[in-house]
Amino acid sequence: MATITGNRISLSPREMPSRWYNVEADLPFKVPPMMSPSGYPVTRRDLEPLFPRQVIEHELNSESRTFNIPKEVRQAYLHWRPTPMFRAHALEKELGTPAKLFYKVEGGSPSGSYESNTAIPQAFYTKKVGAKGIVSGGAGGVWISAMGHAASLFGLTSRIYSVRKVNSEDAWGDAYGRVWGVDVQPSPSENTRFGRLEFKKKGSDSGSIATALAEAYEEATLNPDVKFAIPTLMGSTLIHQTVVGLEAQRQLAAIDKTPDYVIGSIGAGSHFGGLIAPFVPTRLQGRDTRFVAVEEASTPSLTRGVYAQESADAAGLMPQVPMYTLGREYSPPGVLAGAMRYHGVAPIVSALYKEQHINAVAHGQIESYSAGLMFTRSEGIILSPHAMYTVKEVIEQALRSKLSGREETILFTVTPSVTSESTPYDLLLDGVLNDERPEEASLKKSLARFIGRN
Amino acid sequence: MATITGNRISLSPREMPSRWYNVEADLPFKVPPMMSPSGYPVTRRDLEPLFPRQVIEHELNSESRTFNIPKEVRQAYLHWRPTPMFRAHALEKELGTPAKLFYKVEGGSPSGSYESNTAIPQAFYTKKVGAKGIVSGGAGGVWISAMGHAASLFGLTSRIYSVRKVNSEDAWGDAYGRVWGVDVQPSPSENTRFGRLEFKKKGSDSGSIATALAEAYEEATLNPDVKFAIPTLMGSTLIHQTVVGLEAQRQLAAIDKTPDYVIGSIGAGSHFGGLIAPFVPTRLQGRDTRFVAVEEASTPSLTRGVYAQESADAAGLMPQVPMYTLGREYSPPGVLAGAMRYHGVAPIVSALYKEQHINAVAHGQIESYSAGLMFTRSEGIILSPHAMYTVKEVIEQALRSKLSGREETILFTVTPSVTSESTPYDLLLDGVLNDERPEEASLKKSLARFIGRN
Repeated sequence: MATITGNRISLSPREMPSRWYNVEADLPFKVPPMMSPSGYPVTRRDLEPLFPRQVIEHELNSESRTFNIPKEVRQAYLHWRPTPMFRAHALEKELGTPAKLFYKVEGGSPSGSYESNTAIPQAFYTKKVGAKGIVSGGAGGVWISAMGHAASLFGLTSRIYSVRKVNSEDAWGDAYGRVWGVDVQPSPSENTRFGRLEFKKKGSDSGSIATALAEAYEEATLNPDVKFAIPTLMGSTLIHQTVVGLEAQRQLAAIDKTPDYVIGSIGAGSHFGGLIAPFVPTRLQGRDTRFVAVEEASTPSLTRGVYAQESADAAGLMPQVPMYTLGREYSPPGVLAGAMRYHGVAPIVSALYKEQHINAVAHGQIESYSAGLMFTRSEGIILSPHAMYTVKEVIEQALRSKLSGREETILFTVTPSVTSESTPYDLLLDGVLNDERPEEASLKKSLARFIGRN
Repeated sequence: MATITGNRISLSPREMPSRWYNVEADLPFKVPPMMSPSGYPVTRRDLEPLFPRQVIEHELNSESRTFNIPKEVRQAYLHWRPTPMFRAHALEKELGTPAKLFYKVEGGSPSGSYESNTAIPQAFYTKKVGAKGIVSGGAGGVWISAMGHAASLFGLTSRIYSVRKVNSEDAWGDAYGRVWGVDVQPSPSENTRFGRLEFKKKGSDSGSIATALAEAYEEATLNPDVKFAIPTLMGSTLIHQTVVGLEAQRQLAAIDKTPDYVIGSIGAGSHFGGLIAPFVPTRLQGRDTRFVAVEEASTPSLTRGVYAQESADAAGLMPQVPMYTLGREYSPPGVLAGAMRYHGVAPIVSALYKEQHINAVAHGQIESYSAGLMFTRSEGIILSPHAMYTVKEVIEQALRSKLSGREETILFTVTPSVTSESTPYDLLLDGVLNDERPEEASLKKSLARFIGRN
């Protein structure tokens, strides 16, 4: 049973979920299928050259309600899971709200982020089908660190195309790549046909997650030794993230609560999807749980995009995904919350939004960081940029609860700050590290006062 | 009871220690007293203007075996404690050693470091005696973050003198100060008489922890509204760190082990002291537990210093501390492990070393970082610089166990990497953050393919 101690609700390691949840099996409507670039619903056979069998199973099986989490993956999860849940008493007090705010701290993983929740099973299954390595694309240090760690855990090589310019020169995350031995390619790169085209046409700063994914996908289609991995968007990644929602559900159940609001920031939305998924059936049964997706105002896929079949990558190589999108060529401005800069939203999240089971709002970085600073100073956790958008909306909702006087229960997750600019290993790997040992003479000088007395 | 799951040994929040341990009460020899600058053993009265009453009690009371951890402090500890313990199976396998390696992950606190273990009680007691703020000195971002968080938790102001130059321009840690609202002063500063003297005599790069402490101490003696806080060295800080050793002891006991080796890197040595303290009585009773302190080769206080009464600070304002020291004017070269650059070692650790209960070794940064990278790639945790020195010695010992064929049990702690160079809040606080929302026209262009179909 969960332990409640002060503001904290803990699960013991034995209470970590042993099965992921597949919300599609419980939906009263059908999530439209992905379509091949040539226009028919994708099949196992289309995906097999690219993904491990079990990932395809998670992707295409909409019947099974749960999937077993393999022992090896559970063992790796145990390095930081189950994550603790806290009641944000200090923030509630600061806001004067009757709302009850509960957050899980999704840090502590090898990458410092929830992205390890899906990187680890993807690497495990890749190993299991006998491939030698992983190729992927993403938006910087966190995914590189998550995927690099997962690949090294199972003895796989890894190459990651990473958006060259997010906000700083270093954002493409070479530093974390070097820690884990990842071959990090700033995208657009000269490595792939599509990368060279983009580079030539739009310059080195034209990177986006969609471009990075296109490069990785292109490479994976040409190399039978590697499998393609993806940080978010797919049904499989969302399923892997349900470990978060399932833990949250058990933790809230321990104090006899179900959430009135579940709030989360979204890029493509897998983490948010995994958080809300276990609470969807209760909503479908009639309880008015509100799910609120928070977008970066510069990439407003749900709030200003269209629902369409659009490619997951910028080159149009990958399957067409039924989702809310800004179009795969949309090139958002650089913000620190790099993972929020993706042109589309996961099909399941998009379908739930279309069926009006999810609300969406967009916030800018100034208001979000200001809200983040308030949370940090009350609750004592320095936040990652994307967590600040979540917190912005949580505070908004807590203030609305104050106006209405309702004691609503609000659930969210936060991830602590991770910087990807450098690691202590960089100097070592650059060969510029020196060792200095004091000269005997200099020690003698400093110890002169004591000499004769010892 | 502790839970054992795979490689992990967990304590439930209810098993977190409720009392700190005071090893001095169990020692068969006397730790010599601190002396006032004018030459007599310091008394409560000497310290009262500077420290909260309860900190002085922890410092001077060598009779009580334990001290109660106040409820408010326990509540704050619960944000990340008890910390998990892992068996380093992957590293053992890589080394081919019969030794059993157990490490606690001392991350997850608001500062990402064990320094919060003492910052929180110091801030709590400061509040309790009615002071308005805290002034302290230290070596960069981690202590600033730990002390800043603790001060803000109890509504205190905080000013921290921080070594201006450790290895990079930014190492003095302004970034984390801004997060918590700390007034961070790069030391040597123009704020204090001693700082101005140092600045004039030796230049802005002459900083050291001892200089930073001198500045803070000078300010605390002149301002009755603030109390002085210190990251390490004192008996009180070591006592606060015993929460780590006590947890470790319970975790190992759950699998029926006591350590043959306890290994830890040291600056002034409070964390190491707190880790080993609970295991000292067993050694005094005859079990051959080896405690190994690892120094940065450029600051070899135990391995190359002298045992003497030396001031804790560079100006000689603070009491004379009976310790192994390189002399308070020793100015070590810059290394990333800033907290290891202190001229002396905690009196209790020094006394244990003098009585031959502790061994000491010194390692350089190149060998330590290389060992750190090996640990990181096997165990999946990106380490803080000082943890890499610990790991270097752990690997050395594991290889010696391999030669001897002995299945020795080795205990150590690691802290994950924390960078102090910037935080996401910096841009906000600098007022240079922009919000960009896409123009309708640009969205239309990107969505052109879908228009008419939606």
